[in-house]
Amino acid sequence: MSHPLRQHIEELVKLTDEEFAFILGHFEQIKKRKHQYLVQEGDVVKKEFWIIKGCLKSSFIDNDGKEHILQFGMENWWITDYESFVKQTKSKISIDCIEDSELLYITLENRDKLTSEMHKMERFWARKSKFGRIALQNRVLSLLQNSAKERYDLLLQQYPQLFQRVPKKMIASYLGVSRETLSRLNS
Amino acid sequence: MSHPLRQHIEELVKLTDEEFAFILGHFEQIKKRKHQYLVQEGDVVKKEFWIIKGCLKSSFIDNDGKEHILQFGMENWWITDYESFVKQTKSKISIDCIEDSELLYITLENRDKLTSEMHKMERFWARKSKFGRIALQNRVLSLLQNSAKERYDLLLQQYPQLFQRVPKKMIASYLGVSRETLSRLNS
Repeated sequence: MSHPLRQHIEELVKLTDEEFAFILGHFEQIKKRKHQYLVQEGDVVKKEFWIIKGCLKSSFIDNDGKEHILQFGMENWWITDYESFVKQTKSKISIDCIEDSELLYITLENRDKLTSEMHKMERFWARKSKFGRIALQNRVLSLLQNSAKERYDLLLQQYPQLFQRVPKKMIASYLGVSRETLSRLNS
Repeated sequence: MSHPLRQHIEELVKLTDEEFAFILGHFEQIKKRKHQYLVQEGDVVKKEFWIIKGCLKSSFIDNDGKEHILQFGMENWWITDYESFVKQTKSKISIDCIEDSELLYITLENRDKLTSEMHKMERFWARKSKFGRIALQNRVLSLLQNSAKERYDLLLQQYPQLFQRVPKKMIASYLGVSRETLSRLNS
């Protein structure tokens, strides 16, 4: 069976064995425990992560100390603070592990090298970025348009396993509703 | 003075005269009057537009007939329904002109050809897509976190000219607030 990252990339672009070995050579593997951070607010983010196993969240703490969840991440998802990573500015968000997690990461430098040298990988990430943009576009539409109940139902339908793996208060924070509202929706 | 599209692309990747001529050969130019549509809900979108001159909006009409604005577009911006364009599904949104507008467009077929043949253009659009994603990420954070007043101030600070060119009720629809709330903010 081929490497899970290879399977993932080959959903969009086909690779030879040599190409995949070259790509994989640009990544490092790490493990993090539940509650450990990949990115802390204020970091200048140098890495993009791909989740082999585990569950993570990227989130923002507002001035009142309230957490707002931007994104969850599970197996086969990419996660980083794209603003900090792309612009090399200080991160406004944090990324931490909801479960013990195994990840691959690529540094900005290696990612630039890889996309410059391999048009296929530029193409792969360009497509991934498009899909990320589409998901965010739908999230904006949903925040503007849908009731809390509708947002809850949509999330449950798209990512049923999130509801098994993530505490209710985090689901509430992702949906932008209070925990009390979520309890009502959930009953 | 070089073509405005060339200036725009060269903010991210440098081009030779031959390369730009080749790129421009993949585009067509059109004019649209105020209130005319580029995309209507239900269309399968085959084109991505670049705005030479004018002002447009992409928006969604909910079941109650209420309009929610996803994006405005002005000079030098790209606009389309990316979900429909990338996935070739029916568009959930419409794009229409707030002012008489001049546009360049590229078809999906020509865009695929151009990005396959020219790594530089793959790179250009990959970066553009990243920036689009970052803007949407900030919009989600803002919708989750900021008050109507803060969202209004942020928009005014980022795009002061929007407030000259776009009716107040559209600004309200973009911010996800009622027109009455906007009038209070605005006074």
